[in-house]
Amino acid sequence: MAVRILGIDPGSQRTGVGIIDVDGGGRISHVHHQPIKLLVAEDFARRLKLLLDELDALIVRFAPQEVAIEKVFMARNPDSALKLGQARGAAMCAAVLRDLPIHEYAAKEIKLAVVGKGGADKEQVQYMMGLMLNIPGKIQADAADALAVAVTHAHVRATANRIGVSARQVWSRK
Amino acid sequence: MAVRILGIDPGSQRTGVGIIDVDGGGRISHVHHQPIKLLVAEDFARRLKLLLDELDALIVRFAPQEVAIEKVFMARNPDSALKLGQARGAAMCAAVLRDLPIHEYAAKEIKLAVVGKGGADKEQVQYMMGLMLNIPGKIQADAADALAVAVTHAHVRATANRIGVSARQVWSRK
Repeated sequence: MAVRILGIDPGSQRTGVGIIDVDGGGRISHVHHQPIKLLVAEDFARRLKLLLDELDALIVRFAPQEVAIEKVFMARNPDSALKLGQARGAAMCAAVLRDLPIHEYAAKEIKLAVVGKGGADKEQVQYMMGLMLNIPGKIQADAADALAVAVTHAHVRATANRIGVSARQVWSRK
Repeated sequence: MAVRILGIDPGSQRTGVGIIDVDGGGRISHVHHQPIKLLVAEDFARRLKLLLDELDALIVRFAPQEVAIEKVFMARNPDSALKLGQARGAAMCAAVLRDLPIHEYAAKEIKLAVVGKGGADKEQVQYMMGLMLNIPGKIQADAADALAVAVTHAHVRATANRIGVSARQVWSRK
């Protein structure tokens, strides 16, 4: 049975979104990707509101069943970690408000899963996502990262299915 | 005309909540205060969901018209800043989802407003809140901080009204 996965790469200035379908055999197909630009909002509270509204509209429009989100890398300093945390908190709220289970993956795991190298750079992730999902042209970097976390979850899910266990889940109502 | 203010002191383990009424003459009265304990939830996503649900239930029950939230102090390290940011993001989402305007105050401003000294300690804030709002017994520390940010906003609001300007507002639909 096919499952639709929403990948989110949270950021306080731009949050990447990538949506894919994965069928029972583990075959992946591209559905949608975009960055959500938050700097257009005047202040931080409005940015969070914008992020929540945009994510909710995408959840309603595309009806994903599971969410995969990038575990945040160690931020440079407490101030940027705080801002990033707020954006990530809002993104997680958008998922839990629609009762979607959330799975988290570290940047290193994602790069390993989609490029085969934990230390891969952004360009390699963009390139591999284009190749893997048949997306022509250059994919915006944050959207490519979001697609990558969704693809990582699809892989983990397929492997877990094969060996009969469930993928790590950090939140679900059940 | 009286206004009801919801004060929030965000924390990733415990978030304090304090609700007060302030009348046209600037007189303040206590409505409710409590800590919301987040550690009972199994994982971080569930904690955010719990925080969002509890805050929403309090907003529905007490119908505050404005929200005041503590600007976060510089956290000790990026990891705790990230967690705190996520909790703060979820708390702000609870307010924006109900279209409540949010006002932010730094810890120093709050202490100055309620104790008269920017460097006051937690015990002094707890003591002053009990005195000012006629609350018998010791107030839980996070709830006292939440009452203090609400009282700070009430003061700023009253002053702004007197001089005919509006209090700083970081978010409102209008």
